[in-house]
Amino acid sequence: MSILVVGSVALDSVQTPFGKVEDALGGSATFFATAASLYDKVNLVAVVGTDFPQPHVDFLQSRPIDLSGLQRVEGKTFRWKGRYDYDLNSAQTLDTQLNVFATFHPKLPDHYRDATHVFLANIDPELQVEVAQQIKAPKLIALDTMNYWIDYKRDALTKAISLAHVVLINEAEARQYGNTFSLIRAARKILALGPRAVIVKKGEYGAALFTNGESLLSQHFFAPAYPLEKIADPTGAGDSFAGGFVGYIARRGDTSLETMKRAIIHGCVVASFTVEAFSVERLRHLTHEEIATRYREMQHFTHFEAMNGAA
Amino acid sequence: MSILVVGSVALDSVQTPFGKVEDALGGSATFFATAASLYDKVNLVAVVGTDFPQPHVDFLQSRPIDLSGLQRVEGKTFRWKGRYDYDLNSAQTLDTQLNVFATFHPKLPDHYRDATHVFLANIDPELQVEVAQQIKAPKLIALDTMNYWIDYKRDALTKAISLAHVVLINEAEARQYGNTFSLIRAARKILALGPRAVIVKKGEYGAALFTNGESLLSQHFFAPAYPLEKIADPTGAGDSFAGGFVGYIARRGDTSLETMKRAIIHGCVVASFTVEAFSVERLRHLTHEEIATRYREMQHFTHFEAMNGAA
Repeated sequence: MSILVVGSVALDSVQTPFGKVEDALGGSATFFATAASLYDKVNLVAVVGTDFPQPHVDFLQSRPIDLSGLQRVEGKTFRWKGRYDYDLNSAQTLDTQLNVFATFHPKLPDHYRDATHVFLANIDPELQVEVAQQIKAPKLIALDTMNYWIDYKRDALTKAISLAHVVLINEAEARQYGNTFSLIRAARKILALGPRAVIVKKGEYGAALFTNGESLLSQHFFAPAYPLEKIADPTGAGDSFAGGFVGYIARRGDTSLETMKRAIIHGCVVASFTVEAFSVERLRHLTHEEIATRYREMQHFTHFEAMNGAA
Repeated sequence: MSILVVGSVALDSVQTPFGKVEDALGGSATFFATAASLYDKVNLVAVVGTDFPQPHVDFLQSRPIDLSGLQRVEGKTFRWKGRYDYDLNSAQTLDTQLNVFATFHPKLPDHYRDATHVFLANIDPELQVEVAQQIKAPKLIALDTMNYWIDYKRDALTKAISLAHVVLINEAEARQYGNTFSLIRAARKILALGPRAVIVKKGEYGAALFTNGESLLSQHFFAPAYPLEKIADPTGAGDSFAGGFVGYIARRGDTSLETMKRAIIHGCVVASFTVEAFSVERLRHLTHEEIATRYREMQHFTHFEAMNGAA
């Protein structure tokens, strides 16, 4: 199995109540690949400018991440500047400089087309479609998006969704795309387009899985966020969640409901480490043992016994 | 075992996107007692005016609810008028007429003082303290409150909390009382006052349990809300959650962590039925079989398998 991600590699300047960083390594493809490479080999497709610091390339190259799809073009790297206040749930964007990302056109090296598990991070849905159509025999295509594409490229997004097996989407964006306050109905509208599953990301409230399963019992799964007393920086939580999710599935090699549920727990666990530090700092030295410990804790935090006919 | 509740019995006029009712049976003690009486005998302490409709009394009396503590005094019954919009998460109060509830002073018939499980619904914390101190040998005292008492009677509320074993509180109110955005820290501040457990009610996101357990594994538990496509009226969700929670614990007769976890699931399940209709309509004919079915569904919706060393 091998994983492919297409998305952004960026330089983030982030301020939270707990500190700040400038021009730190960021971007959806970065967070995803750093997380997913804990599980399996990742092929990365993205673009950076000539100003992109070599230590960041070295870091990515130090992991099982293939960078032959990382374009280096004349100009400046995509920069994002944002701030989080105490609630840490929503970022306030202070500045976005797309730079070389504005004209990004993903090019897949030939061997990337053999990837089995694909994450189409939040980019123009027309490009998501292009990439998805180049994969020879995908076992799992997962897709993320954002409000901008729902507003301005809804038709292309609908086409991209129809090519995906799993849609990962924020709660507010699910409601926006489904044009309904009910998450169940919003998920059903997305499932009707083809995907087998929708994962609604709820930040501090965890994640909800909705599937096109025939029985009610197979249609829902809920995972809480791993409880943290202190969150340094929420940036990258969603993309590293996707990295844990897709990474675990690629490593397992099947896409059964039970595997997807466990993959969601892996996503929650990896995201919980991501937000404990700025940029990808906490993920640099994250071990399988640390993941396993939180996974077992998540079992305790959610398990309850059968009724024993007591009521 | 027997249960005691002190709170309000009211006439609610509620409008939601899915319908409306006028002067329907409501109030915290009503929702709690209707739910808890599915599990055990309930002693109710509240006050109504001379205008309180006899059919409502007949309904409560048709269940294992002792009404000898229901005062009937000259004047009008407490009335609440509210509206919910599509998000259904927060009520907009249109009118509150405290009427006879303004001078409510709970009087416990002698035999009520033998109650083992007590729910101090959202009333003046000075009255909560008075009631708690009259119980001879409580096994479990659970307490609810609201922002008004945090703002205006914080000291009395702190005293009431110190007498309770379990505090049930809304998410925003937990943050307000704890003066911190972190729910973990807010819960810890409440636990430091004496209670064994804090249950944070999160509406559509379910409920979180925080305990003073020594190990991390025993300190957290998370339950999602039962997934519903259609909610008619959220009024009473919190109080019927408390009814399922306290009712199940009273019926079981122990207060172990495992019992509390199962009790939270019962709370979620009973609340899910409550919100499917206005007032207590859905609870009138709710059966143990229906509760058991949703309980089992909740197991499926939250269960995932161990890692099998796969990552």
